[in-house]
Amino acid sequence: MKTAIIGLGLIGGSMAIDLRRAGLATMLVGVDNNADHARKAVELGLVDEVAALEDAVTEADLVITAIPVNAIKNVLFKILDNISDTAIVIDTGSTKSMICKAIENHPKRNRFVAAHPLAGTENYGPDAAFGGLFTNKTNIVCEREKSSESALEVAARIFSALQMRTIFMDPVEHDKHVAYVSHLSHVSAFLLGQTVLDIEKDEKNIFNLAGSGFASTVRLAKSSPDMWAPIFEQNAEYLSQALLEYIMHLQKFQYHLMKRDVKELHRIMTGANHIRKVLEGLDVKQKPDQLVENKT
Amino acid sequence: MKTAIIGLGLIGGSMAIDLRRAGLATMLVGVDNNADHARKAVELGLVDEVAALEDAVTEADLVITAIPVNAIKNVLFKILDNISDTAIVIDTGSTKSMICKAIENHPKRNRFVAAHPLAGTENYGPDAAFGGLFTNKTNIVCEREKSSESALEVAARIFSALQMRTIFMDPVEHDKHVAYVSHLSHVSAFLLGQTVLDIEKDEKNIFNLAGSGFASTVRLAKSSPDMWAPIFEQNAEYLSQALLEYIMHLQKFQYHLMKRDVKELHRIMTGANHIRKVLEGLDVKQKPDQLVENKT
Repeated sequence: MKTAIIGLGLIGGSMAIDLRRAGLATMLVGVDNNADHARKAVELGLVDEVAALEDAVTEADLVITAIPVNAIKNVLFKILDNISDTAIVIDTGSTKSMICKAIENHPKRNRFVAAHPLAGTENYGPDAAFGGLFTNKTNIVCEREKSSESALEVAARIFSALQMRTIFMDPVEHDKHVAYVSHLSHVSAFLLGQTVLDIEKDEKNIFNLAGSGFASTVRLAKSSPDMWAPIFEQNAEYLSQALLEYIMHLQKFQYHLMKRDVKELHRIMTGANHIRKVLEGLDVKQKPDQLVENKT
Repeated sequence: MKTAIIGLGLIGGSMAIDLRRAGLATMLVGVDNNADHARKAVELGLVDEVAALEDAVTEADLVITAIPVNAIKNVLFKILDNISDTAIVIDTGSTKSMICKAIENHPKRNRFVAAHPLAGTENYGPDAAFGGLFTNKTNIVCEREKSSESALEVAARIFSALQMRTIFMDPVEHDKHVAYVSHLSHVSAFLLGQTVLDIEKDEKNIFNLAGSGFASTVRLAKSSPDMWAPIFEQNAEYLSQALLEYIMHLQKFQYHLMKRDVKELHRIMTGANHIRKVLEGLDVKQKPDQLVENKT
């Protein structure tokens, strides 16, 4: 398939690598507003060439968008207005309600698949792209019923080539759930980093004491503000709710800490230990017959 | 050296492995209140035999304590009352003010080295022990001036065999700094885990969406409450202060989020991005001449 990748960062670049390897993308054209990223992506061989958006999508059989969620609406309209009648467009953004709503009445809505491959690292830009990023991860498709059978069939081939398992969800449900399991972890890491950077100003050399536990907990604080600020904005309602619950738990913990109520602190931590089972579950590769379907 | 390891968990067990490999510990005697852990430690070959505390320490040239910080005071007094005049005792607990204060007037204070090797994982018990846990990590020694030269010399050989770099600190300064770079990360992870476990009750299958970012941020929530509750209690003042600052940052973030002030969210995250440099610094192995000394 002639494939256009819109946005040549970690997600777009890594998809390009895997789709070329799988033989699904025969010719790859890239589009990126950032001239350095565009040049770099060609240099790295992620795409064969770069082009302007309209030129890239007119000829494409498949268009994949991997750009910040505040840019997707305008870009997606331009894409749908310019693609051929048989082309498929797949979005990979981390929020889904806004874009599903924006696109709902477009005459080519059924050529579009609203996806969210749950994969990433704290790094960004074409240099961060690598093959295998998506392997054994989960992909979410929203509003499956609004995509044509042929669009869903192409998307299934794509995500299967990326070795992802796909689940289906309502976009509002999607946004709520990722607020807890993805967006909240990012906020928690960003502000943990900020808190420790703040104290470092007064207390020099504090980072000599930071070990692998701190590094792991704060890792996501390295993530791109350009990417995450728009995600947080679009998911502000649910993220704010998640954040409020998190703050409430922290305040309760602090209250028991100040009262030296060790028994209660112990009880809270024992409850949180259940996360061990969940994380072990994440390491288990799910078989196809275990696919979860939350059909909308 | 005939070595007694008091507490046969992750820290005690991993030290046993490395000190035997380095040829420093010739005969290893273990002590553990938990009969299963004691038996397991012998089975795994971490120690040659187990014994009662008094019996183990009377004959030892070196005693290492690696037990929860609420148990250390009583145990340490029993040890110092029973060791030979030439034996050395090293503690490895995660808080240092309480124990340094408790021991200050003991006639054998100078045989004691108050250490905190900054290494660990979220796992615990003798099964969790492994060789190389301490390699390239930082060790803190508090109140160096209260230990005899011979005690410091033995401790230096021990931590050098473990391939750690040692820095020196006042115990109060130690407790304050680790509140930020270690204890706060643990609280943050425990409560992030709790928040997501809570919402899972109402929203099934939410964990299908959890990826490697969530796993990394929440990893420390698997840690042992038996070990951490006493640490938090002993460091309640500083940890509470750190927690309050963290909560304040989270609340400010939520405020800007509710106002959809994307520019401010972006600014906060860009500030937190500076943690990248810090974490890269952690990966650089420090040379001996870069040792930091915060002499008390």
